[in-house]
Amino acid sequence: MAVRVDLNISLDGFATTTDQTPEEPMGQDWGRLVAPYVATRTFRARVLHETDGAGTTGVDDKYAAAYFEGIGAEIMGAGMFGLHNFPDDPDWRGWWGEEPPFGVPVFVLTHVSRPTLQMAGGTSFEFLSAEPADVLARAQAVAQGKDVRVGGGVTTARQFLKAGLVDQLHVGITPILLGQGIRLWDDLRGLEADYSVTSEAAESGVLHLTYRR
Amino acid sequence: MAVRVDLNISLDGFATTTDQTPEEPMGQDWGRLVAPYVATRTFRARVLHETDGAGTTGVDDKYAAAYFEGIGAEIMGAGMFGLHNFPDDPDWRGWWGEEPPFGVPVFVLTHVSRPTLQMAGGTSFEFLSAEPADVLARAQAVAQGKDVRVGGGVTTARQFLKAGLVDQLHVGITPILLGQGIRLWDDLRGLEADYSVTSEAAESGVLHLTYRR
Ligand SMILES: NC(=O)c1ccc[n+]([C@@H]2O[C@H](COP(=O)([O-])OP(=O)(O)OC[C@H]3O[C@@H](n4cnc5c(N)ncnc54)[C@H](OP(=O)(O)O)[C@@H]3O)[C@@H](O)[C@H]2O)c1
Ligand SMILES: NC(=O)c1ccc[n+]([C@@H]2O[C@H](COP(=O)([O-])OP(=O)(O)OC[C@H]3O[C@@H](n4cnc5c(N)ncnc54)[C@H](OP(=O)(O)O)[C@@H]3O)[C@@H](O)[C@H]2O)c1
Repeated sequence: MAVRVDLNISLDGFATTTDQTPEEPMGQDWGRLVAPYVATRTFRARVLHETDGAGTTGVDDKYAAAYFEGIGAEIMGAGMFGLHNFPDDPDWRGWWGEEPPFGVPVFVLTHVSRPTLQMAGGTSFEFLSAEPADVLARAQAVAQGKDVRVGGGVTTARQFLKAGLVDQLHVGITPILLGQGIRLWDDLRGLEADYSVTSEAAESGVLHLTYRR
Repeated sequence: MAVRVDLNISLDGFATTTDQTPEEPMGQDWGRLVAPYVATRTFRARVLHETDGAGTTGVDDKYAAAYFEGIGAEIMGAGMFGLHNFPDDPDWRGWWGEEPPFGVPVFVLTHVSRPTLQMAGGTSFEFLSAEPADVLARAQAVAQGKDVRVGGGVTTARQFLKAGLVDQLHVGITPILLGQGIRLWDDLRGLEADYSVTSEAAESGVLHLTYRR
């Protein structure tokens, strides 16, 4: 029943990118930040629904596969779900198409009330406003003894980290310098005191760091 | 004749610590930041002049040994030399005792003029005020074809990085969160474009990242 956070960050600690434009809604930096993760066989199969078995199979893929293992419920913020990008679209159903990769109940933290969405493949999106500890209790209640992931975005992840609710934090550090965005590490001085650490370098240059309680 | 920078930084990118007090002039954080480096056999032999061969011999030691190899001259800032700590002491001769580990001519950037110091073991400290490119030319002129290190502090290292003068940047990232100090990565967005990257994880948890031109 661990609470897990996994994020991709830049070498300078940014977990969001800032170069989005109307023409390029994702921007270029996001692609550079997550490129090693998106290149993995696990991401291509699990998120892109590719069936040809293509993709990298090294250290990055090991972490990508672990990402999806043993999760019984997910928590995310309104930003990650896309509500801040499409605030006026009542039909917005998230970035992940009709069969999202989660396959479990997802709790979306937002101050706006929206009806629950039932998606294909076991994913549901329930929208709620609650304290971190309370939404966590609700997620654990439906997680069937499995782990709960706090998926992001960075504001939500930091909220759970600061509240001391996270048992395992994994970051994949992509060796690029973004220079701007939201920093994961701000205001978390001394966090390491509650955890042991594991470090591993991937063939891609990504540095994988895991804090475990 | 490469120009090299090697620094220890925290996971949140800080290369200086801020908890110094009159009673504890180094503070506690500095010790935590450099602990894996100070524990290496190379540091203990080369900097502490220990002769018992004690110290770690893994990945951290490999980088510690490489740190001292092939350097023909060194450049550092007034802060690293200690002039900001002891501005009024004309007899200050640096942190490293009478036989500093450099063993080569060291150029100390400062706006204060001081006579050159001759130390034991081949180290000299010459104090000068100059543009990065100019002090580099002077260092290269005495380096006998070897590499020049820009040793620090972080202000000086960033000055050389921003001027595009650095061929190889190695950081040992200690997995602790300091939360304050001077950030190495500020204002270096896109630096990676000029370099290829190598990543390696040490047994200690330190992540070693090297940008090479
Ligand atoms: N690097 C990664 O691995 C990673 C992973 C996921 C996402 N991301 C990035 O993260 C960004 C989105 O993150 P973000 O920090 O902007 O937003 P976010 O954390 O996804 O969402 C924050 C928003 O969620 C709502 N919220 C949060 N806590 C709440 C609570 N306790 N009760 C009620 N509502 C609450 C609030 O929205 P309202 O008040 O508007 O309802 C708040 O503004 C995107 O840029 C995405 O690309 C990065
Ligand atoms: N993390 C690491 O691996 C590492 C390594 C070394 C040092 N450090 C840390 O770095 C800190 C010191 O760094 P810092 O950034 O404060 O200072 P610094 O870079 O050592 O020195 C900066 C100072 O050098 C002088 N200076 C720099 N460029 C100059 C130029 N072109 N011409 C003339 N003078 C110039 C100026 O001093 P004046 O105008 O006062 O003369 C300037 O304030 C210490 O906290 C130390 O612990 C960390």
